[in-house]
Parts: sequence; structure tokens; C-alpha cells
Amino acid sequence: MEFTAKQIAQFVQGTIEGDENASVHTFSKIEEGTAGSISFLANPKYIHYLYDTKSTIVLVDSQISIDRPVAPTLIRVDNARDCVARLLQLYEAAKPKKHGIDPLAFVSPKAKIGKDVYVGAFAYIADGVTIGDGSQIYPNVTIMDNATLGDNCLIYPQVSIYHDCKLGNNVTIHSGSVIGADGFGFAPNAQTGQYDKIPQIGIVTIEDNVEIGANTCIDRSTMGSTFVRKGVKLDNLVQIAHNTDIGENTVMSAQVGVAGSTKVGQWCMFGGQVGVSGHITIGDKVLLGAQSGAPSSLKSNQTLIGTPPMPQFAYFKSQALFQRLPEIYKQLNALQKEVEELKKKS
Amino acid sequence: MEFTAKQIAQFVQGTIEGDENASVHTFSKIEEGTAGSISFLANPKYIHYLYDTKSTIVLVDSQISIDRPVAPTLIRVDNARDCVARLLQLYEAAKPKKHGIDPLAFVSPKAKIGKDVYVGAFAYIADGVTIGDGSQIYPNVTIMDNATLGDNCLIYPQVSIYHDCKLGNNVTIHSGSVIGADGFGFAPNAQTGQYDKIPQIGIVTIEDNVEIGANTCIDRSTMGSTFVRKGVKLDNLVQIAHNTDIGENTVMSAQVGVAGSTKVGQWCMFGGQVGVSGHITIGDKVLLGAQSGAPSSLKSNQTLIGTPPMPQFAYFKSQALFQRLPEIYKQLNALQKEVEELKKKS
Amino acid sequence: MEFTAKQIAQFVQGTIEGDENASVHTFSKIEEGTAGSISFLANPKYIHYLYDTKSTIVLVDSQISIDRPVAPTLIRVDNARDCVARLLQLYEAAKPKKHGIDPLAFVSPKAKIGKDVYVGAFAYIADGVTIGDGSQIYPNVTIMDNATLGDNCLIYPQVSIYHDCKLGNNVTIHSGSVIGADGFGFAPNAQTGQYDKIPQIGIVTIEDNVEIGANTCIDRSTMGSTFVRKGVKLDNLVQIAHNTDIGENTVMSAQVGVAGSTKVGQWCMFGGQVGVSGHITIGDKVLLGAQSGAPSSLKSNQTLIGTPPMPQFAYFKSQALFQRLPEIYKQLNALQKEVEELKKKS
Repeated sequence: MEFTAKQIAQFVQGTIEGDENASVHTFSKIEEGTAGSISFLANPKYIHYLYDTKSTIVLVDSQISIDRPVAPTLIRVDNARDCVARLLQLYEAAKPKKHGIDPLAFVSPKAKIGKDVYVGAFAYIADGVTIGDGSQIYPNVTIMDNATLGDNCLIYPQVSIYHDCKLGNNVTIHSGSVIGADGFGFAPNAQTGQYDKIPQIGIVTIEDNVEIGANTCIDRSTMGSTFVRKGVKLDNLVQIAHNTDIGENTVMSAQVGVAGSTKVGQWCMFGGQVGVSGHITIGDKVLLGAQSGAPSSLKSNQTLIGTPPMPQFAYFKSQALFQRLPEIYKQLNALQKEVEELKKKS
Repeated sequence: MEFTAKQIAQFVQGTIEGDENASVHTFSKIEEGTAGSISFLANPKYIHYLYDTKSTIVLVDSQISIDRPVAPTLIRVDNARDCVARLLQLYEAAKPKKHGIDPLAFVSPKAKIGKDVYVGAFAYIADGVTIGDGSQIYPNVTIMDNATLGDNCLIYPQVSIYHDCKLGNNVTIHSGSVIGADGFGFAPNAQTGQYDKIPQIGIVTIEDNVEIGANTCIDRSTMGSTFVRKGVKLDNLVQIAHNTDIGENTVMSAQVGVAGSTKVGQWCMFGGQVGVSGHITIGDKVLLGAQSGAPSSLKSNQTLIGTPPMPQFAYFKSQALFQRLPEIYKQLNALQKEVEELKKKS
Repeated sequence: MEFTAKQIAQFVQGTIEGDENASVHTFSKIEEGTAGSISFLANPKYIHYLYDTKSTIVLVDSQISIDRPVAPTLIRVDNARDCVARLLQLYEAAKPKKHGIDPLAFVSPKAKIGKDVYVGAFAYIADGVTIGDGSQIYPNVTIMDNATLGDNCLIYPQVSIYHDCKLGNNVTIHSGSVIGADGFGFAPNAQTGQYDKIPQIGIVTIEDNVEIGANTCIDRSTMGSTFVRKGVKLDNLVQIAHNTDIGENTVMSAQVGVAGSTKVGQWCMFGGQVGVSGHITIGDKVLLGAQSGAPSSLKSNQTLIGTPPMPQFAYFKSQALFQRLPEIYKQLNALQKEVEELKKKS
């Protein structure tokens, strides 16, 4: 695919400075620019790259002032970063989609497969599975009995979807993620001196427009369903335990863990390696800094960090004083001595 | 499968209040009850659900008092939660088990397969593997040379079991877990200026009745074996490093990491995201709160939390004071000034 | 394979004490020694094992003094631990390598496969993939379009390598790891009230001699490449986010997470569960203790621990005082009272 500066400027509603017929076929970072690529410059701090770049076209934020001639064709726009994101989406959408059932796949005759579906080699689609129109199932995926996938899902290699789980439309799951493994439920049995397994007969429900990273785990509930609501985005290696409910448009970075039966609100953002206890409620728009640990429920509309989570500024003050504890303790002991001196005198 | 209140009451040794012929075919939470389902009520706090539920049968703890008529048939029992667990086990046990070797599986003619074994499509069973009676190997599993599995093992899709590893009876492993990858052993080589790999020629031994969650890793030892003892339960995304020994009936929540050559005792419970250092010994019945970090050995019979782990109450006190450090530091400095005033006067 | 004491002594340049024709075929720990195995003793603390061991040969550090006769043949060497590592390497190298394309694999006719390559059953090698000489692709691996692998790579079962990613020579990847899944990039869209995906059109580049553990994730960059440089060693369940650059010979223990666009220097060592923020720079030879959290850039040549990372000794002092905070706070309050008494008197 080859696009001219003129075509791109029309699409992003920008103004061309330079050759409107300059054409590109790929993207590059401005500092790694190559002929035939388009780059962007949104931060005036990096303007020096503009004078050296080999990129053919550069999208430049309109407020950046340029004080000498540059080689690439410029397209001036209000928000270069946004425009690039939109161009990338266009570029991705233009890629040919895989389709058809690979003869090396297994698709049960009792499965219901929509139109224009791709099922890759060595993918296993069990009895009773439903796959909606336009969905793509990559090689080596396993989808167990009676699971249902909506339209335009994208399931990368090595994903496992356990029996009866339900995925909405436009759900993307990256490699190695596991949807619907048994929740972690065991009860000590005094008679046998062992743990008994509590069977997990519920399911996982993933609503529309959810994206799940690689090697993430979402466990099926004991009864009923674990819910991942519309628009949720989970990064890699995230743990979502059984009986949880993750609210719409909530975003979790890599290696976050949410324990069982917890309800997380909408539009939350959790940094990497955050841990959230079980059986609690996190409100809407709760932002938790990386490595925070939430042992109890949190109200909506807070930006917190630490264990337990505190307002950011207070946390950073406490943290700074933690580092100075030896000095503070010395100060306290010196003061103690002075007071003892004073007491002797008085 | 359809069961009447009478059959269920006999099985759980309960007393019927209502229609003994009421029948159910599934389970539901009392707050999500549907006709044809059985629910339970163990906590008097949730009694309001009982008056609204659409469940056909409800198991109710005998000590819960009900002050007005209810729609569902009740079965009164001493411990409703336990009874439900037992019913769930019955329900699971009654499900038809998969069996037979799928023609799309590869089973080496040099493998030894027991009776009534299931091997799913695209599962790979290498030379010299032994699989005991009644074991179920789901699609896309890989079991490498000379590994042995006991009877009634349940190996979900995408699991890898490396060569020579040994699993006992009734071992369940959820999707994506990796048993027997190389332990993490490298030694800097002064001559080449690189790391040399230390080959890991040992194995992993998993004893009877172990359950392992999804995407968990248990590394093979350098020599000898990494051990996961009888009845251990590991949640998802857990890391068990090489040369470790995890004691009987120990339970680890998701994202726990145990470093190399550490010995963990029996009946321990580790909360989510706990980290345990290498080359140490954790005693029996050590309970570690979520996100704790254990840098050194811990004696038996302790409930601890934090890094390093402390008794819970002491930890919560220190944590509360950490949050108040700015205020404490102000108090100290104010006091310092007062003492200086006093000194001037004296 | 059977080796005599004489052959081994020649290889490790050691001196025999005992029967030079004693022969072994495997390794064992000295405390678990069996006839026909070789063990080592490097630490005088464990000399008691030498008197009881059933090992046929023991490599012993030359400075360890032995005060009574022992059963096994001894080989005296300057550094027993190193010699064992070299013997293990020899032993591993002597194992027969798998080769040939399994008839149950899928290899695209548009892929380019080197000499002496192994591709296992149910492995999927897509169009345009290049695999160098001597590489081994285990069963159930998926390698997507146009990815390239160098010579002598070792890719264990269930690994996913996404399209266009590049691996150098001698790259080992353990089961379940995912190379090149989409970086975690979403932008809120005020118009739709949802997140828009920022397509990730870059790749992952893994240089020579890298080893990657099981279930580790390395995300593709937004543009350009995520880099894992020569000789890097990553343990299991590690998260390497998009647009990062991990310097040569850096080592990360299990469950470490590095957020997006961060540059990590050479010869760093990160303990287990360390978290590193995005958009920062970690210098060379930075050693971070387990569970540390690095919110901002760190200069080279430091050994640090904690959140934010501090010099080890200072951290341990602060940590000890954290545990004593309740006592310190009591001391402060008592002092306050004494000062008030003094003020009354003065």
C-alpha cells in the first residue's frame, strides 16, 4: 500500500508543506526514519530529529515552530499523535484478513461457524461451539464444548477457552491466555486430612470490545459467571480470579492480580503488578499506581498508590521519610538525651 | 440430570420444608436463582434473597430463622456451604468423561497408555511416555520423552510436560502450565565475557492429588528433582523454581514466586503475589499474607505478612504509622524546637 | 554414555585418587548418590556426605582435606563446581538432537527451512518464515508470517512467535512464551466514550545467545522494534513491554516486569518480581533486589533494593526501623510528655 502526502493530508485534515506527491508505504519513528516512511513530531523537545530524519513525510503538530528548511514533506495537524494513531488503524484495517477453515484444523460437525471465519491449522473447535461472523481463530487454539464467540473476535495461537464460556463481539485475546480455567476453590476436609476440591461449575462472560494480552488468566466462577465488561483492556500475565466482575473500560497493566469475588468499577486503571484482595469493591475511576496492594474496598474517583493505597503525594512523603528513618531515629535519640540533661538540671 | 428435593435431602441428610418432589437440574447463586436450580443460604445477612429468589430448592443452614413463607422448597442442613460443595462434587462426577485416543492425536508407538485414557486432537505423546488408567489429556497438550503420568490425571489444553518428569495419580493441571522447563542456571564465564548455561538434567516430581492452575511454571532441577508433594494446590501464574521442595497440602495463590533450592513445609498458605527467596526453609503451617516477601527462613506455625514478614497485628500498626510519618516527623521537629527553647532558658 | 574416571580427569585436568577405571553414566547430588553416578563436593561444610555417598566418582575441590578413607574414586580439581558445569554441558551436548520435519507438522511451502532442522508434530510454520540451520522447533509451536529464526535456535512446545519478529542464532525459548504480541496501547476516544486501539506495527528483535524461560511475554513495539540484546537471560513469567531495549547479558529473574519504552543497560541483574516503570533508563550493571520497584531512571553500577530502590544497607536499616515504628512512636510521645513537664517547671 502506497499513500501520497495529498491523500494523507485529506484523511487527517492537515496542511501540506512541501511535495504533495511524496509517497510512503510504512511508518517509522522520526529518529529511525527511512525513505518511504511517515513519522510524527508532537513534542518540540525532539525537533532536532526533524532536521536529520530520512522519513519522506512527517506529521507535525501545528504549534511547533520550525526555523530552518527541512527535507521531508510536512503535514501540519492539530494533534500529530492522534493522527498517527488513526493512520495506523487505517493501515492495519487494510491488511488482508485470514479466512477459511484450514484443512488441518478440527471443527466439530456439532459446532456452528459463522460467515467469513478463519480457523487455523491444529485449532480445535469442540462440539456445540458457536463462532460469529468474521472471527479469526489462529493455529493451535483450543475452544472447548459449547463455548460461544461473537462476531469479529481475534483469538491468537495457543489460547484456551474452556467449555461454556461466552465471548461477545470484537474480543481480541493474545497468545497463551486461558479463559475459564477452574477458580481456585478448595476446602480442608477434617476426615481425610486433605483438601477437597470445590467444583467450579460457572463460566466466564467477556463482553464486547475487550482486549486481553498474552498469558493472562480469567477463571470461571464457582456458580454463575465471572464478568469482564465491555471495553475492558487487560495486559499480559494478569490474573482475574473466579466470581469477579471487572467494570466497563477498566484497564489493567501487566502482572496485576485480582482475587476472588471482587467487583471492580468502570474506567479504573491499575499499574503493573498491582494486587487487589478478594471479596471487596473497587469504585469507578480508581487509579492505582504500580505495585499497589488493595486489602479493602476503595471508593470511586481516587488516584492512589502503595499498600494500603494512599493519595499519591502523601505516599511519596511517607516513602521519602521511610528512607530517612535511620536519621530520624538518631534525631529522636539525641533529643531524648538532651531532655534527660534538662531534667537533671531542673 | 434431574434430582428431587427428596433425593438431595437423603444425600445431604437434611430435612425438607415444602414440596419433596420439587426437582432441579443445575445450581445458581441465591441472588441469581432460576427455576430448576438449587441455591444455598449459609449467612443470615443474605436472608432477604430467600424471599425473592426464583430458585426451586434452597439449602438453608439450620440455625437461620425464617419469619415468613417462602416460595422455594427448603432443605435444612447443619452446614449449607459444605453440603453444596458435596453436591457440586456429585454433579461433576456424574458428567460424562471423555475417552479414547482422538485420531488427530499423535501417540508414539513407544508410549504406554493405560485403560480408558482420553488423548485429544493435536496432543503429542512422545516416545517412552507412560499414562495411567483413566487419565485425560486434552487437545494441544505436549508430553515429552519418557514422562510418566499416574492414574486419573487431568491435563488441560496447551500444557507442556518436559521429558522424564513424573506425575502421580489424580494430578490436575490447567491450561498453559509448564512442568519441567529448565531451571534458571547461568554462570558468568570470564574468558568469553558471556554467561554459560548450567544444564538442568534433573526432573520435576509431582505427587498424588496435586492441582495446578493455568500458566504456572515448575522448573526441573539441576540434578535430582524439584518436588511438589501430595495434595499441594497451586493457583495460576505461580513460579516454582528449580531444586525446590513444596510440602504436602501447601496452597499458593496466584502469582506467587518461590526461588531456587527453597524448601517449603506442609500446610502452608501463601497469599497472592508472595515472593520467597532461594536457598531458605519455610516451616510447616506458615501463612503469608498477600504480597509478602520472605528473604530468609521462617519457623513453623506462624501467620505473617510484609517484607520481611511480621506478625499481622504488628505489621498493620507499623503500616498505619508509615502513613503518618510526615505528621510524626513534624511532631519530632516541633519537639526539637521546644527543647532548644528550654535549653536556652535553663 | 559411560565415562571412566581417567577420561573425566583428563577432561577437567584433575588428579585421580582411587580407581581410574571406575565408570559413571549420570550425575547425582552427593547426598543422593547412586552407583554409576558422579557427584561433586565444593563446600567443606558438606564433607560428611562424602563418607556416606554411594556415588562412584566424586569431584572434590583441592583445598578440602579428607581425614579418613572414602569409598568413591575422587578426582581432585581446583574448582569442583565449574568442572561439574562443564561436564554437564558435555553430557547435554552428547545427547542425540531431534531432526527432520514431522509429517504431522505444517510447514508452508513459502517458508525457508535450513539444514538439519527439526519441526515437531502440530507445529505451524507460516508463509515467509525463515528458520536457520540446526534449529529445533518442538511440537505445537506456532510461528507466524515472515518471522525469522537464526541457526541453532531451540523453541520448546506451545511457544508463539508473532509475524515479522526476528530471532538471532542460539536463541532458546521455553514453553508457552509469547514473542511479539501487541504492545499495550490504547487511547481514550472522547467521541465514542471508549478506548481506541493503537495498532502495534513494530516487531521484536531477539539477538544471539538469548535464553527465555517459560510463559514469558515480550511485546512487539508500536513502531520500530522492541530489543532483547545479545546474551540476555530471562526467567519464567517475565513481562517485557513494547518499545523497550534490554541490554546485553542482562539477567531477570521470574515474574519481573519492565514497562513500555524503558531502556535497560548491560549486565544488569533483577531479582524476582521486580517492577520497572515505563519511559526510564536503567544504567549498566544495576542490581535490583527481589520485589524492588524502580519508578525513575537509575545510574550504572549500583546494587539497590526497595521501592524506590536504595542502597542495600540503608534499606535494611530503614526496614528494621519500620518494624519498630510503634515503639519509636511511643518513645516520641513519652518524650513529648517529659518536655511538657519541663516546660511547666521552667
